[in-house]
Amino acid sequence: MVEQAPHMTADEFRRYGHQVVDWVADYWSGLPERRVTPDVSPGDTAAFLPARAPETGEGFDEIVKDLDTVVTPGLTHWQHPNFYAYFPANTSGPSVLADLVCAGIGVQGMLWATGPACTEMETVMLDWLADLLDLPARFRSSGQGGGVIQDSASSATLVATLVALYRASGGRWRTDGVDRHYTIYTSTQGHSSIEKAARLAGVGDGAVRLIDVDSSTLALRPASLRSALEADRAADRVPALVVATIGTTSTTAVDPLPEIGEMCREFGVWLHVDAAYAGASAICPELRWSHTGVELADSYCFDPHKWLLTGFDCDAFWVADRAELIQALSVLPEYLRNAATESGAVIDYRDWQVPLGRRFRALKLWFVLRWYGAEGLRAHIRSGVAVAQEFASWVRSDRRFEIVAPYPFSLVCFRLRLDDDAASDAANAELLRRLNASGALYLTHTKVRDRFVLRLAIGAPQTTREHVAEAWRLIQQTTSSVDHDLEVMIDADSRRSAHDHGDLGAG
Amino acid sequence: MVEQAPHMTADEFRRYGHQVVDWVADYWSGLPERRVTPDVSPGDTAAFLPARAPETGEGFDEIVKDLDTVVTPGLTHWQHPNFYAYFPANTSGPSVLADLVCAGIGVQGMLWATGPACTEMETVMLDWLADLLDLPARFRSSGQGGGVIQDSASSATLVATLVALYRASGGRWRTDGVDRHYTIYTSTQGHSSIEKAARLAGVGDGAVRLIDVDSSTLALRPASLRSALEADRAADRVPALVVATIGTTSTTAVDPLPEIGEMCREFGVWLHVDAAYAGASAICPELRWSHTGVELADSYCFDPHKWLLTGFDCDAFWVADRAELIQALSVLPEYLRNAATESGAVIDYRDWQVPLGRRFRALKLWFVLRWYGAEGLRAHIRSGVAVAQEFASWVRSDRRFEIVAPYPFSLVCFRLRLDDDAASDAANAELLRRLNASGALYLTHTKVRDRFVLRLAIGAPQTTREHVAEAWRLIQQTTSSVDHDLEVMIDADSRRSAHDHGDLGAG
Repeated sequence: MVEQAPHMTADEFRRYGHQVVDWVADYWSGLPERRVTPDVSPGDTAAFLPARAPETGEGFDEIVKDLDTVVTPGLTHWQHPNFYAYFPANTSGPSVLADLVCAGIGVQGMLWATGPACTEMETVMLDWLADLLDLPARFRSSGQGGGVIQDSASSATLVATLVALYRASGGRWRTDGVDRHYTIYTSTQGHSSIEKAARLAGVGDGAVRLIDVDSSTLALRPASLRSALEADRAADRVPALVVATIGTTSTTAVDPLPEIGEMCREFGVWLHVDAAYAGASAICPELRWSHTGVELADSYCFDPHKWLLTGFDCDAFWVADRAELIQALSVLPEYLRNAATESGAVIDYRDWQVPLGRRFRALKLWFVLRWYGAEGLRAHIRSGVAVAQEFASWVRSDRRFEIVAPYPFSLVCFRLRLDDDAASDAANAELLRRLNASGALYLTHTKVRDRFVLRLAIGAPQTTREHVAEAWRLIQQTTSSVDHDLEVMIDADSRRSAHDHGDLGAG
Repeated sequence: MVEQAPHMTADEFRRYGHQVVDWVADYWSGLPERRVTPDVSPGDTAAFLPARAPETGEGFDEIVKDLDTVVTPGLTHWQHPNFYAYFPANTSGPSVLADLVCAGIGVQGMLWATGPACTEMETVMLDWLADLLDLPARFRSSGQGGGVIQDSASSATLVATLVALYRASGGRWRTDGVDRHYTIYTSTQGHSSIEKAARLAGVGDGAVRLIDVDSSTLALRPASLRSALEADRAADRVPALVVATIGTTSTTAVDPLPEIGEMCREFGVWLHVDAAYAGASAICPELRWSHTGVELADSYCFDPHKWLLTGFDCDAFWVADRAELIQALSVLPEYLRNAATESGAVIDYRDWQVPLGRRFRALKLWFVLRWYGAEGLRAHIRSGVAVAQEFASWVRSDRRFEIVAPYPFSLVCFRLRLDDDAASDAANAELLRRLNASGALYLTHTKVRDRFVLRLAIGAPQTTREHVAEAWRLIQQTTSSVDHDLEVMIDADSRRSAHDHGDLGAG
């Protein structure tokens, strides 16, 4: 007689589940009282954990209790109202509860047959999103295209790269691999995942051309792209892919899609548009200018998990020609054959992505889109943009600072303005260090025109105008202490002129 | 004044959260009364959904109600006790509740700095698992190696392929791409993700050598591997990777690791071991024979989300040399630079995987390993193996059937035994169709020695000996109806001889 495993009964699940729901609600309510970043050193969390798994099971109360002793003290709190780092990756109540349903159902959506509702809801949700963003008809499932959920924009970029290579090779890529010198183009501001995708796809980092940008807008310069395409062609290389960005990671710059798109058609190159962060803003008609020209794209993605209140992982990725995508990525071993697939009447999403297995992530979109409604989501985007614009106006009114890039969305890039470059970088890095060490907020940095710059990105549902105003007060105070301690000599004239450095307005 | 988005309050989350927990508990309790596979046609679920998202938000009660009207009628119920298809991908109460915590915390674990506890718990959980499976010391974080959670074994195979190419190229692969004719080896029974990884990595399907297998055990034949390696070398190709399998997808065949591993060392080829399904069995000392020779592997993976009660996605992937992995996959744009990374004292898991972002999946392992304890998990594996062995004994005692492959774990491959090949395939396909159409259980098929074969895989926590006995009764009854309807003439002698077809025992 084999011993029975101590599976959790439905009644236990009910009891412990309520406990965990309450824990999450308490966690959210308590966030404002916490530091945003933890005060820990490498190894602190590991030190709490035993060297091996327990031999016999423990009580659930013990486990939940340890969330507070082991886990939360070592967390960077991404849902904190004062989290302004990177791009926020915000979730919401309805998204979390959809994830709970997804986990409970535990369905595998690799084939239509293994989860018909999982597959069909995903198709419809991507159509809903395409409609909300007013994406071109060619991306909808009613035409030749269609959408799919990827885990991240990185994976969307990789998939776009793969199909682009398939197309550029006339299909030989599937069996022969990378058999010519393919090249890939993006701006110097393109995301690091583009370089990584090139490497993973076997063309190498060296095949990526980083096209220079307009020094003011930081958007890709079409003339430079043309020069690069022509030079590569002349050198017998094969341009395969251009990745244009709507809302770059550093500064939310918007590449000029209409010119890039026309050039891609002229050169026969796949155009992928990476709108990971800023794509969500296109649900607001007044912000949709950034998407002008998207009808020229072969593929497009944005992350509902960044700015649309849907928990990670949820990248929405569309192609204009789903047949080409499937031809590139399909596999069909005997053990996956089934009547529905052979009928040709269904989508098998395993052929739209890198892994085979997949969760029922469309539930998150269904819950979020229905709970908020289109108007509710627009209100979220608009409030983020409005508060960011107000923050920018405060920065501009303090002559110690300058804004270094346009801020059409909810990210503002700024820095202490000093004449000496090295001193300026040191002062800004020190300012960032002190701000984050306080635990009261969390900002990250980037470099713009090779200078160290602070980024403040707004997106959390709990973040209000008051939180941002408080953040600004702290930035001002901390700046004063940096000024004093570093004895940086800031020229009063440069401060005055900074006040007029106002050509980088919204949108 | 910008309108406020209707964010769910903490109190609402508490109320609705309890509601959703109860829904999941009810869903599980009600599974035995449901069909395993839905009785739907393509488009049925989509037809329930409006063409566009609602303009204004809906009440949560409406959404939850639609789970029963829209979602569950279109589900293949992977957690159903009578789900015997593919490999089960089973979850458990503690895993689902950990996913709820993960979703609620909403942390991004791409860098140590963005989630110290997320990173460190993952390292420790992978060490716990390595300890439970008695994996070699070289895979532990205390040595040169270490573990990481991938979404799936497919992604683990891809990552192994990429690092293998990096190594085979002497590092040039990073910048130069695939610049020689690299080759990859697995058995004819290797998973389709190996071919897909080769394609994605830019070497092409054509670079994959499918090595033949022993006709009885279906395990890779080392002599054939040697011939292939030698032939490719002689043809100026560069063998880069061998993928050996512990527990193939079709039949759970176990490749001979000691011989394969020695050969990989001799030829300087990366050995990746794919134990996606069967790896979990190594927590039981009596089943660990299948892992003999794993100390020769450069990388190894198994899926806790298949047979270790941890919800998808959770593939555990180890490398013996983490430095090489990181060198192959690292990117470091300015906006991700931080003091902890530069100190060299931390792990940044973004360099261990394809995407950049990642969830706090280690929580699932932590909850599951603590709730069940090592003994509880062993009991789960042992009960699955015991019931599978008993099922096999029933099949063997019915002379109409034969078992077509060894069944050392919890998968049994069998078929109706007819002398005529074509008639046999048709009869078995028809038997499968009728069984699945009944809705009472769900099996899938494969081909073994080019013949159509049924697979019965056991893994769900709700599955008991009685469920499997009932499944066997249904298989027997349905077989009688197939016999009758197809008027297949089964030779009585062949039936008798099938009774003695018993050389394919456990282990």
